[in-house]
Amino acid sequence: MTTGRLEAFSDGVLAIIITIMVLEMKVPHGADFAALRPLTPVFLSYVLSFIYLGIYWNNHHHMMHAMHRVSGPLLWANLHLLFWLSLVPFVTGWMGENHFAPAPVALYGVVLLMAALAYTLMVRVALRIEEPDSALARAIGGDRKGNLSIALYVIGIAASFFQVWLAGTAFIVVALIWLIPDQRIERVLRQ
Amino acid sequence: MTTGRLEAFSDGVLAIIITIMVLEMKVPHGADFAALRPLTPVFLSYVLSFIYLGIYWNNHHHMMHAMHRVSGPLLWANLHLLFWLSLVPFVTGWMGENHFAPAPVALYGVVLLMAALAYTLMVRVALRIEEPDSALARAIGGDRKGNLSIALYVIGIAASFFQVWLAGTAFIVVALIWLIPDQRIERVLRQ
Amino acid sequence: MTTGRLEAFSDGVLAIIITIMVLEMKVPHGADFAALRPLTPVFLSYVLSFIYLGIYWNNHHHMMHAMHRVSGPLLWANLHLLFWLSLVPFVTGWMGENHFAPAPVALYGVVLLMAALAYTLMVRVALRIEEPDSALARAIGGDRKGNLSIALYVIGIAASFFQVWLAGTAFIVVALIWLIPDQRIERVLRQ
Amino acid sequence: MTTGRLEAFSDGVLAIIITIMVLEMKVPHGADFAALRPLTPVFLSYVLSFIYLGIYWNNHHHMMHAMHRVSGPLLWANLHLLFWLSLVPFVTGWMGENHFAPAPVALYGVVLLMAALAYTLMVRVALRIEEPDSALARAIGGDRKGNLSIALYVIGIAASFFQVWLAGTAFIVVALIWLIPDQRIERVLRQ
Repeated sequence: MTTGRLEAFSDGVLAIIITIMVLEMKVPHGADFAALRPLTPVFLSYVLSFIYLGIYWNNHHHMMHAMHRVSGPLLWANLHLLFWLSLVPFVTGWMGENHFAPAPVALYGVVLLMAALAYTLMVRVALRIEEPDSALARAIGGDRKGNLSIALYVIGIAASFFQVWLAGTAFIVVALIWLIPDQRIERVLRQ
Repeated sequence: MTTGRLEAFSDGVLAIIITIMVLEMKVPHGADFAALRPLTPVFLSYVLSFIYLGIYWNNHHHMMHAMHRVSGPLLWANLHLLFWLSLVPFVTGWMGENHFAPAPVALYGVVLLMAALAYTLMVRVALRIEEPDSALARAIGGDRKGNLSIALYVIGIAASFFQVWLAGTAFIVVALIWLIPDQRIERVLRQ
Repeated sequence: MTTGRLEAFSDGVLAIIITIMVLEMKVPHGADFAALRPLTPVFLSYVLSFIYLGIYWNNHHHMMHAMHRVSGPLLWANLHLLFWLSLVPFVTGWMGENHFAPAPVALYGVVLLMAALAYTLMVRVALRIEEPDSALARAIGGDRKGNLSIALYVIGIAASFFQVWLAGTAFIVVALIWLIPDQRIERVLRQ
Repeated sequence: MTTGRLEAFSDGVLAIIITIMVLEMKVPHGADFAALRPLTPVFLSYVLSFIYLGIYWNNHHHMMHAMHRVSGPLLWANLHLLFWLSLVPFVTGWMGENHFAPAPVALYGVVLLMAALAYTLMVRVALRIEEPDSALARAIGGDRKGNLSIALYVIGIAASFFQVWLAGTAFIVVALIWLIPDQRIERVLRQ
């Protein structure tokens, strides 16, 4: 069984999630630029979530590229990841509409954290299919970036109730450390 | 004629159905966690329907994987299945918004039952294309899981007017017995 | 240049069109079956449009299957077809919400007519790419079904202002004569 | 690493963008043709944006067709292009609902300009992957059409505050000069 259809379905779901988020930016009734101002936090939330979903698509692409087979558990680990990502438009909209209030920012962090844990779980399931000395196994290694992200999400969620800008910073830092696609996998594949 | 485009189109429709369901969870206006409480039944309905659609995608994937050709009737049997699945977001939303009231739960069951019958019909059409001793034919066999699901749906629909929790239990049990991808097909394919 | 990406993009657009139509069926607020009654014409319109889009997907699939190359004009002929089909959810919703009033039924017919003309144009463009004695050329032949459909659409549009049931009958008859995928192409391909 | 999945994901996003735009055309409540009249500017905006997105899909298709490999930066250049294109439904809806008022027309131009710059950037990144004498490098050449478009967008944005019809004309002219798929690439590929 090849990875083709898993990629096709995941691409479809990620493409739809990334695109329906923009539907949360409701067209304003006014015809001047001032009518756009209330949309600023919604737009900023959209940009951050777009980057996050781009990172997931990118890393998903790299993981699948290093794999040769899929299994039943991998199909479900993938659906589990897509489930948490499917909640991103909802929490993005809630955070944007409420101008980065504590509770929506915390929930945004929780959904990101669950997606990160689901991705980690999917990598674990993928490593059970591939050989112990496969390209994927060598590439993942100790997964420092993954562990750092999870720590930053937890800090961000806790911080959102005290210093909401600290939570935002934590989530932006996670995006920045992942913005570069997983060089570990690319480097090993090139060898 | 290969199964490639049938899979691509079905993946597209299933990916969209699974994702637009989340649009039924309207972003609440309040900025605290209490504002999320009325969404609980909508969220639970979403989780159940997400799992159901994941099961259909998984089994569809396995069925197509065991096939080598498509026919005109199979294209229509597939569209017929997608038609019933396309109604899932509607009944999910109706059931969630009405906090599992009898009529919406019954209709939810009816749509699941129709989708199950459409899947059974599609398998029958697929078996007419494949050889009598094909991997697919050997894998399906007596289809005990399919028959059991249909019985549970009928019980659930009937129960929804008397004991709504019994209907919910029936629908959850069906999901659980299918959550494992069709091992029969996987086992035969591996031989 | 192969037909692969043209199919993938068309599949994506058709899958989305067919699925967002269901969003026109707004979840009712009542929790009993009586709350569904006002949705009956919307549901019937949805079923008819689902069948129409299924027919277009099916025939598109068969046409692409008989082709070996694409050209710039074919890409645009395909986008032109998708444009008219993208208006189907709008006219379906308008017709359903207004309980088959004359103007919405007529506009529904106009959009179907334009889609049929766009399909005919696309076939003409496709025949310019393929050899004169290609499978596609032999399969299309005199295109009696296409011409009959266009005549029925024109009759239906005209009838919608006098006898709206006659218009509905004309549109249902067109669907029925196409419900069987294009046997002409299948027959020639099998030879 | 091949271009396959990049195309599949981009096709998905473009297919969804092109289709959800039609959701901005809200079904009117009246049942006669007069009820459609207020939708005329929304419809005209939809037609223009549909053509623009068709042009991007077409040119994207041609660029990918001339490429043999993808890189990490190309994946992000592609996502950057899709980000600006994902804003097209929003600005299309705002422009249509406000009957081509200056601010929405200017913002429509800004989003088109950013998408054009993102496409230019993506071509630059693509040329870094391909050989200096590759089909893509020879086909792009001086990129006169790209530079002319950017100039026309800037003129259109400036004009929108004085003569809104001039801005509209500029945007329509850009569409017309691109409506023919990139013959430069096609010509070089054919050699």
